[in-house]
Amino acid sequence: MNVVPMNATVARAALSRLFEPSDTVGLGLVSLVGPVDGLRIVRRDIDAGGEMRQRLRELLGMTGGRRDPLDEGLARWAPRLRDLAPERDLTTLARLGGRLLIPECEEWPEALNDLQEAAPLCLWVRGAHEIPRVNRMVSIVGSRDSTSYGSSVTTDLASGLSARGFSVVSGGAYGIDAQAHRAALASAPGDESPPTVGVLACGVDRYYPAGNEELLRTIVDRGLLISEVPPGSSPTRWRFLQRNRLIAALSAVTVVVEARWRSGALNTAHHAAGLGRPVGAVPGSVYSANSAGCHRLLRDGTAVCVADAADVAELAGPLGSEPAGDQAREADVRSREQDGLTIPDLLLFDALPVRSSTTVDKLSVVAGLATRDVITGLARLELAGLAMRTGEGWRRGKS
Amino acid sequence: MNVVPMNATVARAALSRLFEPSDTVGLGLVSLVGPVDGLRIVRRDIDAGGEMRQRLRELLGMTGGRRDPLDEGLARWAPRLRDLAPERDLTTLARLGGRLLIPECEEWPEALNDLQEAAPLCLWVRGAHEIPRVNRMVSIVGSRDSTSYGSSVTTDLASGLSARGFSVVSGGAYGIDAQAHRAALASAPGDESPPTVGVLACGVDRYYPAGNEELLRTIVDRGLLISEVPPGSSPTRWRFLQRNRLIAALSAVTVVVEARWRSGALNTAHHAAGLGRPVGAVPGSVYSANSAGCHRLLRDGTAVCVADAADVAELAGPLGSEPAGDQAREADVRSREQDGLTIPDLLLFDALPVRSSTTVDKLSVVAGLATRDVITGLARLELAGLAMRTGEGWRRGKS
Repeated sequence: MNVVPMNATVARAALSRLFEPSDTVGLGLVSLVGPVDGLRIVRRDIDAGGEMRQRLRELLGMTGGRRDPLDEGLARWAPRLRDLAPERDLTTLARLGGRLLIPECEEWPEALNDLQEAAPLCLWVRGAHEIPRVNRMVSIVGSRDSTSYGSSVTTDLASGLSARGFSVVSGGAYGIDAQAHRAALASAPGDESPPTVGVLACGVDRYYPAGNEELLRTIVDRGLLISEVPPGSSPTRWRFLQRNRLIAALSAVTVVVEARWRSGALNTAHHAAGLGRPVGAVPGSVYSANSAGCHRLLRDGTAVCVADAADVAELAGPLGSEPAGDQAREADVRSREQDGLTIPDLLLFDALPVRSSTTVDKLSVVAGLATRDVITGLARLELAGLAMRTGEGWRRGKS
Repeated sequence: MNVVPMNATVARAALSRLFEPSDTVGLGLVSLVGPVDGLRIVRRDIDAGGEMRQRLRELLGMTGGRRDPLDEGLARWAPRLRDLAPERDLTTLARLGGRLLIPECEEWPEALNDLQEAAPLCLWVRGAHEIPRVNRMVSIVGSRDSTSYGSSVTTDLASGLSARGFSVVSGGAYGIDAQAHRAALASAPGDESPPTVGVLACGVDRYYPAGNEELLRTIVDRGLLISEVPPGSSPTRWRFLQRNRLIAALSAVTVVVEARWRSGALNTAHHAAGLGRPVGAVPGSVYSANSAGCHRLLRDGTAVCVADAADVAELAGPLGSEPAGDQAREADVRSREQDGLTIPDLLLFDALPVRSSTTVDKLSVVAGLATRDVITGLARLELAGLAMRTGEGWRRGKS
């Protein structure tokens, strides 16, 4: 699948172990000199040179000050150089049936480039599927301590979105994440189905959290497991926060099902909003602490209210667009046939008695309409089945 | 209380029986010639004249066509002329302890003028209080068939808003409306308390719906009952729809607690939004048909998500502004003392073991930080109680 020179792959694999995610100095260096020379500079095989250092300072928007960002970076990366063994990491990945994606290769998700200077160096990937295009990916995220309400909504959303051809992206965590993956797996049994995508804060060889090991193994078998940190890496707070930007960037829409007032899911939502991607938040009881974060997103305008898969698909754009409408809405709409009436006809309809009959003169007083308008209006209402003639005059229709 | 000539009051009382609410032709006529001459024209005591008819056409934005709006109006109003008895209506109102407010008098709510050409002719009012200023009024509206969730939220909102000095405005209907009035009455026992305001689609002498008679009588005693239609008038669909514009116009904020996908409460919300007044919608379960209308308002951007009285007060502006914060939020915020850390310190904190100890060198590999940054970072974390020195090195602090 990779037709690019091996050294770019190896270099990015190496750098992804040296740099923490979103290390702006490291990523800036790579953007200036490429991964191979970047690695040689980090290893001090070659010197960066004064001109390159100056360009890096400019890239990082550092106009003054005496500190040199590259020297700080070199000091930060040095302690990890000793154990660096990218070929070993790539062998480990290959043994797991995985592959390394780098920006130079065809399968690289274009959508990640929207992260600009924070685009990941590479993606460590397990799973047979190709990564779907961004307009086919929707992330569903939320609290680890989800409620039964949150689980139900997650199941409905993930099933409905899978059925509409969307990949469900999430973080493989307990709670909403796990439920989203599970429902996507349950509703997409075939190989042709959109794969669910787990984006991890640790290496793709680690099953974290331990209680989700079986789920994560199933995702490897039938979906995709992705990380920007190499095999063996442990999940840290920083990596969780940065992982969230990948979830947001990979997906056309990010939906938060349940989140507390402070929650990692809000971080994902803000990443998505920062990328200009639509964010959906599922409303819930105002008495549920697990919905407070969703309501916060709705209130501050970060998210749009979504109640079902149709709402989410609509946010995702053309692919999933279809007329929204659950049963409650349709029933509600059907029951109001008088809604299409003009104002005078509505006044007249209101004035018509349900049980007894009345005259045109009385109708004109009650409705506040001229006699001739009552007569023409009654004809229209009669046609619509809303008025009927009786021996004594007029009454409501029986429809 | 009224220092204006009696004939303006009598004329407006009469016209409010002849014209249905928001009769644009009738209201246009009054805006051109005033209520007294308007009534004389309607009664055909005087002729409107060609120039006035032309000005009326222009006011109504009718540039062409052969139909004359005034002639149509005269035909519409004629059937009701026979039984016109404004002095009798005013006597009825006075006997009930009520008063008629007209735009010419001091107590007239300025806020109604925001309705422009749809401002009511007059207000038939019962209750001892003056109508509060718009920035002290919040309307709470919603489904007639409210759920227990909707009732609870309504109670909390109305109580919280009353306690903050707001008048709770609603429509006196079953469900959310009644609950809003009840909670406002319960939390505002004193004469100094903000009165709850019921805005009716029928005359203020009628207790509609019948099941709310006792509540409506209590509102007369301790709050305000308002209508733009004269005593004896029955509620019709048109009058309900138009009544909604009065609720919206009288209030600084309109809150929809529960509403189906199609609901009169949405009509009130759209009136408020059209007036540029903030609209709040209370979120709820996506499985509740009674919240579907609220979610619709949130989704289409008509309403802002409100979860408690503090959120609503904030929308109402300066008077009620105060830092939002329920217990769940505060507890959630307190629990994250590491949130304020810089990125390097967060990386370092993550790298610190909880149970065992580690060395500065190991920390620099795990955290991906230069040795000197680990040393200075540990000093900061130690000060914050997040790191502690042990015999063997460093570990997480016990705080």
